[in-house]
Amino acid sequence: MVPEVRALTFDVFGTVVDWRGSIIAEGIGLGREKGIAVDWPKLADAWRAGYHPSMDRVRRREIPWTGLDALHRMTLDRLLVDFEIGGLTEAEKDHLNRVWHRLRPWPDALPGLARLKQRYIIAPLSNGNVALLTNMAKNAGLPWDCILSAELAHAYKPDPLAYQTAAELLGLPPRQVMMVAAHQNDLRGAKAAELRTAFVPRPAEYGEGRTLDLTPDPDFDVVATDFLDLARQLGA
Amino acid sequence: MVPEVRALTFDVFGTVVDWRGSIIAEGIGLGREKGIAVDWPKLADAWRAGYHPSMDRVRRREIPWTGLDALHRMTLDRLLVDFEIGGLTEAEKDHLNRVWHRLRPWPDALPGLARLKQRYIIAPLSNGNVALLTNMAKNAGLPWDCILSAELAHAYKPDPLAYQTAAELLGLPPRQVMMVAAHQNDLRGAKAAELRTAFVPRPAEYGEGRTLDLTPDPDFDVVATDFLDLARQLGA
Repeated sequence: MVPEVRALTFDVFGTVVDWRGSIIAEGIGLGREKGIAVDWPKLADAWRAGYHPSMDRVRRREIPWTGLDALHRMTLDRLLVDFEIGGLTEAEKDHLNRVWHRLRPWPDALPGLARLKQRYIIAPLSNGNVALLTNMAKNAGLPWDCILSAELAHAYKPDPLAYQTAAELLGLPPRQVMMVAAHQNDLRGAKAAELRTAFVPRPAEYGEGRTLDLTPDPDFDVVATDFLDLARQLGA
Repeated sequence: MVPEVRALTFDVFGTVVDWRGSIIAEGIGLGREKGIAVDWPKLADAWRAGYHPSMDRVRRREIPWTGLDALHRMTLDRLLVDFEIGGLTEAEKDHLNRVWHRLRPWPDALPGLARLKQRYIIAPLSNGNVALLTNMAKNAGLPWDCILSAELAHAYKPDPLAYQTAAELLGLPPRQVMMVAAHQNDLRGAKAAELRTAFVPRPAEYGEGRTLDLTPDPDFDVVATDFLDLARQLGA
């Protein structure tokens, strides 16, 4: 237990929801419906691989502040060419781009968040834009107390400003806010902004059989196997 | 029914919650506990009377952006002198100032919002800061999909920027967002930003027997007697 903590902020893609499995499942359905053959696991991975480079363009101020929906769309438009996916209307492309609004939670996420919510303020703190996170919560039943996003700071994580802005909006000093994430660079950014840190590795994020080094940085305050274990460790 | 509308944004103080009744009730409890005699209805009215003048100082840029918690506290500090309320510790003053985080909903608010949430995205759009609205929602069980606030635009309603920023964060054109309020100037601001408008008069807001002109502006899209009537009219 970390006695001072009042609020938990959660990374979302990979930590709360299984982006890869969700995109593959929707893609397979779309492919069947439209009669197109696509390697959806490969497309999902390529889409996600575009994530950091697209945010880097904003971070380096090559382009003005651009929300994640628009960045996802830029990457998708390129992938539709690379994967030779033709015949989609603008409405269908927009719908596919919004698959990120419809991602499915990991099995422990909803019961874990329900328990954590009883004791803490819980909020996403994602690089996803507010609309994306709001629609995802409504679709998946994520019981957030409020929606926080890098969009509200116009600074993508791990920029310390993203975390500082979240704590400020919660009306709390950073030490009373704990960042929960499956990604160590996110937690290091949170720590640089003086938030507490909880590491919840998600070994299946990039698919079964992918080997990632998930050895936790010894500086994290909490390491948990999933959100139910996190709730136990945080007394919720 | 207004077919295009996807999200409803709600004024909070007076529209969703009974600020006056809540402050009086908590004040009476505090007075009893501390052995102080205060005219709490008068104090509640004086506190609220400080609301617009304090925001006007921000609007005129006499002071930099200041959240509502801090503005409430400036007014409270003056009222503690005017009402000769002594003997409160800093922690007690802070707790009293946060009575605005603990306001109680009007009786129709929770059942009405539950119905509206099934069909629409629902969010507060208040001059209250994000922390205040988040704590209030958690305390009162308000089932918002996300928390929107003038704080996110650094512009107090009825500045059109407050409404435009809300629509932008929701990822919707203003015409797909409907502002719900008990105050006509709020709705006129929303209309200036091209949002739809729903007027829900709250004749008891300033206490029973106060006569306010609540004749609705004929330009509003919807006029409803309470949130259940609003749900009926909006097909929810």
